[in-house]
Amino acid sequence: MSDKVRIALDAMGGDHGPAVVVAGAELALRRHPGCEFLFFGNASPITPLIDARAGLKSVSRIVHTDIAVRMEDKPSQALRYGRWKSSMWLAIDAVKKGDADMAVSAGNTGALMAMSKFNLKTLPGIERPVIAALWPTLRGESIVLDVGATIGADAEHLVDLAVMGAATARILFGLPRPSVGLLNIGVEEAKGLEPVREAGRILREENLPDLDYRGFVEGDDIGRGKVDVVVTEGFAGNIALKTAEGTARQLGEYLKGAMNSSLSARIGYLFARAAFQRLRQRMDPRRANGGVFLGLNGIVIKSHGGADAEGFAAAIELGHGVVRDELLAKIRAALGRAHKPPPQAVGGAAS
Amino acid sequence: MSDKVRIALDAMGGDHGPAVVVAGAELALRRHPGCEFLFFGNASPITPLIDARAGLKSVSRIVHTDIAVRMEDKPSQALRYGRWKSSMWLAIDAVKKGDADMAVSAGNTGALMAMSKFNLKTLPGIERPVIAALWPTLRGESIVLDVGATIGADAEHLVDLAVMGAATARILFGLPRPSVGLLNIGVEEAKGLEPVREAGRILREENLPDLDYRGFVEGDDIGRGKVDVVVTEGFAGNIALKTAEGTARQLGEYLKGAMNSSLSARIGYLFARAAFQRLRQRMDPRRANGGVFLGLNGIVIKSHGGADAEGFAAAIELGHGVVRDELLAKIRAALGRAHKPPPQAVGGAAS
Repeated sequence: MSDKVRIALDAMGGDHGPAVVVAGAELALRRHPGCEFLFFGNASPITPLIDARAGLKSVSRIVHTDIAVRMEDKPSQALRYGRWKSSMWLAIDAVKKGDADMAVSAGNTGALMAMSKFNLKTLPGIERPVIAALWPTLRGESIVLDVGATIGADAEHLVDLAVMGAATARILFGLPRPSVGLLNIGVEEAKGLEPVREAGRILREENLPDLDYRGFVEGDDIGRGKVDVVVTEGFAGNIALKTAEGTARQLGEYLKGAMNSSLSARIGYLFARAAFQRLRQRMDPRRANGGVFLGLNGIVIKSHGGADAEGFAAAIELGHGVVRDELLAKIRAALGRAHKPPPQAVGGAAS
Repeated sequence: MSDKVRIALDAMGGDHGPAVVVAGAELALRRHPGCEFLFFGNASPITPLIDARAGLKSVSRIVHTDIAVRMEDKPSQALRYGRWKSSMWLAIDAVKKGDADMAVSAGNTGALMAMSKFNLKTLPGIERPVIAALWPTLRGESIVLDVGATIGADAEHLVDLAVMGAATARILFGLPRPSVGLLNIGVEEAKGLEPVREAGRILREENLPDLDYRGFVEGDDIGRGKVDVVVTEGFAGNIALKTAEGTARQLGEYLKGAMNSSLSARIGYLFARAAFQRLRQRMDPRRANGGVFLGLNGIVIKSHGGADAEGFAAAIELGHGVVRDELLAKIRAALGRAHKPPPQAVGGAAS
């Protein structure tokens, strides 16, 4: 695949709509000059925003639609009025038709998931798509999935998550055989949920060529970077992700307060300002913005609804990375191996 | 109740055993001179540790036992060899017999829960005990429960958690009618788990006199301090707690790295040292050590297995606070009102 990546954007999604989507696209373009954009949404606010950015304008096209999915609607409602014609649907449809390599939306997550599933369909053997998040850790980054697409999971679904997560880690982190852990708690008789235990048994026995299963991990192992891929069902995964974001924001507030607490602290802050600026970037939850929908016949990226231009650009860039490295083809191959492992594939066949 | 609080300690529990338990008791005694201690465990390491501390020695008694519960055993195994005679059992039994006002252990959580339930029995109407944690927030502190006693919860169990959590918040925070939220995720059709939705409906309709139900909260609302009491089942609650602890530790490492990253950063650190020391205390997960077991006929406190003396002292002090304020009597009264609300109790009857 060439460096050119064609990106379909739901310009009406998120709390801030076109202003943030267009500004985010411009930031991403600056860092990845091979991007091309299709903006779907109401042309009257979008056009002047793009006209004001000559570089962006030269690689962008606007497709007008009056219909936008509302943030508060249920997926079923959104499908009723938004199918075939909303900006969200059209962005996904551009991926389906091959007009774009990926779609990005900061809109209603449930609606985006429902429309993606309805239009793109799931990969063979996968019943439910999931959301994978990039999680900054002390060792670099890990992939955590599912962070909120579906509630509850049987053992087989958890095994699929492990396989798809490992394929993603292989591409994003360049690891030949990423380490994988199942998120669990350590206090209950025989340790935690039955499907989690059963998934652990399967992963251990199958000893797949594409992933190195390391057993159970607990919540505090995520930030430690104990494994490259953390597997969990969507309810606990979403709560873990949001709790970590909340904790990062809380400690950022503590730090700000501490640096304003006395004259000598303020002087100290001035000396250490460059270090603080780098620290602020590391602690910034926007850096990790963007979840990849996995398990679909196409790449769809969900940005936080409240993301600003910097956050939205991070979501675009996440998608850019997985598209360039042909994530989808590699997930298909890994799922094929996991469900019917041919003996010759074991032990490092090319993936 | 007088200021005297009698505390039974499982001296063999935790990763560090008697050394940490005895040192932690000494720290707690310094801050709460009314404490009296019963140490259960192997007298030969415990006695010299206590003999070396004259103040502690004058308020302590050692009860020897050879049997200690191992950290890695299943609750059923621990019950088999540890019932009637382990240091953990004897500490709980001191509460049952009225020899102590509360028990503290840093031992095997599952075994502590099983022995507490077996010996103390649950309160009328409560089937399963839960663990409540104190969670530092931007607004002060909140109570989060269940953080890992039982996996899964039906709506009725979640309502009981709300009632017990609110009773605890009333006592620890001195609030007449604490605000309560149900932990949920915001992306699924009609929002999240069915039992959570059903519990929300019950809490809204019953409009209990002892708590102010505020609806669903998400993971990032916990650190924000959006509500005084966050209710969840034990799997998600444990993962949220551990994830927050892991994130705090991770950001602490980032901060340390940033302050060592250049000469001017190190100079800045020197100026701001006092502020950093206060900050370190606020970010220290040990500060919030200790979970209260709720729903039992007696007060049992679980300290982290890895706690040091400062952490173990925090667990003792948490128990000291709830015992002094007669938590148990107030939970019993609140549960009575919740299950059969007499009309005259609505709207601010004395609790």
